Amino acid sequence: MSIVGGLPDTEFGRGLAMIECPGRPGVYGTELAERWRLGGAVHGGFLLALAARALSSVLPGHPDPLSISAYYLSAAQPGPAVLHAEVIRRGRTLSHGSVSLGQEGEHGPIERMRVTAAHHDLAAAGNNVRYSAPPPAMPPPERCPVMPRYLDRADILDLLDFRLDPATSGWVDGRPSGQGVLRGWLRMTDGHDPDPLLLLMAVDVLPPVTRELGVEGYVPTIELTAHVRAKPVPGWLCVAHTTRNYAGGYLEEDAEIWDSSGRLVAQSRQLARPVAG
Amino acid sequence: MSIVGGLPDTEFGRGLAMIECPGRPGVYGTELAERWRLGGAVHGGFLLALAARALSSVLPGHPDPLSISAYYLSAAQPGPAVLHAEVIRRGRTLSHGSVSLGQEGEHGPIERMRVTAAHHDLAAAGNNVRYSAPPPAMPPPERCPVMPRYLDRADILDLLDFRLDPATSGWVDGRPSGQGVLRGWLRMTDGHDPDPLLLLMAVDVLPPVTRELGVEGYVPTIELTAHVRAKPVPGWLCVAHTTRNYAGGYLEEDAEIWDSSGRLVAQSRQLARPVAG
Repeated sequence: MSIVGGLPDTEFGRGLAMIECPGRPGVYGTELAERWRLGGAVHGGFLLALAARALSSVLPGHPDPLSISAYYLSAAQPGPAVLHAEVIRRGRTLSHGSVSLGQEGEHGPIERMRVTAAHHDLAAAGNNVRYSAPPPAMPPPERCPVMPRYLDRADILDLLDFRLDPATSGWVDGRPSGQGVLRGWLRMTDGHDPDPLLLLMAVDVLPPVTRELGVEGYVPTIELTAHVRAKPVPGWLCVAHTTRNYAGGYLEEDAEIWDSSGRLVAQSRQLARPVAG
Repeated sequence: MSIVGGLPDTEFGRGLAMIECPGRPGVYGTELAERWRLGGAVHGGFLLALAARALSSVLPGHPDPLSISAYYLSAAQPGPAVLHAEVIRRGRTLSHGSVSLGQEGEHGPIERMRVTAAHHDLAAAGNNVRYSAPPPAMPPPERCPVMPRYLDRADILDLLDFRLDPATSGWVDGRPSGQGVLRGWLRMTDGHDPDPLLLLMAVDVLPPVTRELGVEGYVPTIELTAHVRAKPVPGWLCVAHTTRNYAGGYLEEDAEIWDSSGRLVAQSRQLARPVAG
């Protein structure tokens, strides 16, 4: 992939383009394209990557999200959006910032997402692995079935090459396992190699684990926090969704991503509220 | 326990007392007592409970934290502190807010913690458990050893009656298991029954899981997000710390808390940076 303005010249890289408003440092305009739509909203993981990109610009020397938390306030729609990025604290190894993403509504601006994050320079972080969960045992991608187009109005799915682990793909044939695990192999169809910003989208882009629990329909995220722990190497990503708590109408869902070297490069946890399909 | 001003008349309840600054809605003064100290700082879980308490005041009808995320910016010290609570959005079933906790430093105010949260009314939430991790098998509290005073300058430990699961207590005798699990039974010595605010402290008050990995010393939190999923019943809490990723100098640590009825009432995940002891 070739690089344009610091971002790869891919669908994903071009989707993260933004323009700083003249005379308003930290305020960026962007266009949310239909291709990032999943159901009735622009995909929350894509918005998270946008927020991290805005923070990179206001936190020089600390381009990479280490921990980033998003609260989703209302459903973002394709069209123009504005990001307000603010520095909370600049430090030597870590800097903190917040981002608000807004869109114009009929009656004035509407906040879609509020983000807080700790950024650093991943290249300067250590690589010593003291303790790590190994990647799950799955057949190689070429022996895993391609995920069917399981949702309408989900343009973002065209950008994903997702191969289902047969052990957690019963939901496709109406035979969900009843276990809180759903996993497989992921790569982008636009040639975008894994990088820290892509990981922020990848932690939330699989079908929700509720499918393997026999529950269809959308699972809008209320809050999601992601940790990016290492720069992923090129190749397939192994992505696993699990839950340990679906109760009282809310779902906790964890994602883990291993790169093709077997390194656990990202983790996330979200709280979501499944709605009938 | 008796109730004073909406909070139980216990050490923990009195510790959460705050006064709204006249003419400045959402701004609260409080005194951080030495008894909440753990190592070189006031305990982060206690500060999180303070933040949720402040948010309860600005989000009427939605007293309970559902998901709450804290970024710790600098070490809070015993003494006066100010909380600035702001409403992000008021909704029908969920409301969102943010809190900044600051203290006066030599050269002006210093921000200690930035919090974002989604609040609701736990009493109005459903109780249907669709899928849940069961509590771990442990001997009853009376057959579990009392946690030794493993840290100096840790006044908060006097308020905890923590009984160690023998299966994960090897660290006490210098024989850590090498596994990323540390768990036991917890109750307060001040008679404070479990409630949503106590859960916010409880998710971060056990010895860090690094002890069972043979690593001593403090483990300061960079970011912690907690989900409170049900009102706990009175009695012992079963608390488990686990990690799946200690690498590059950073540690991910998850906490799960079951109440004495066996309900998974709270979960948290934090990113921390262990320092030599």
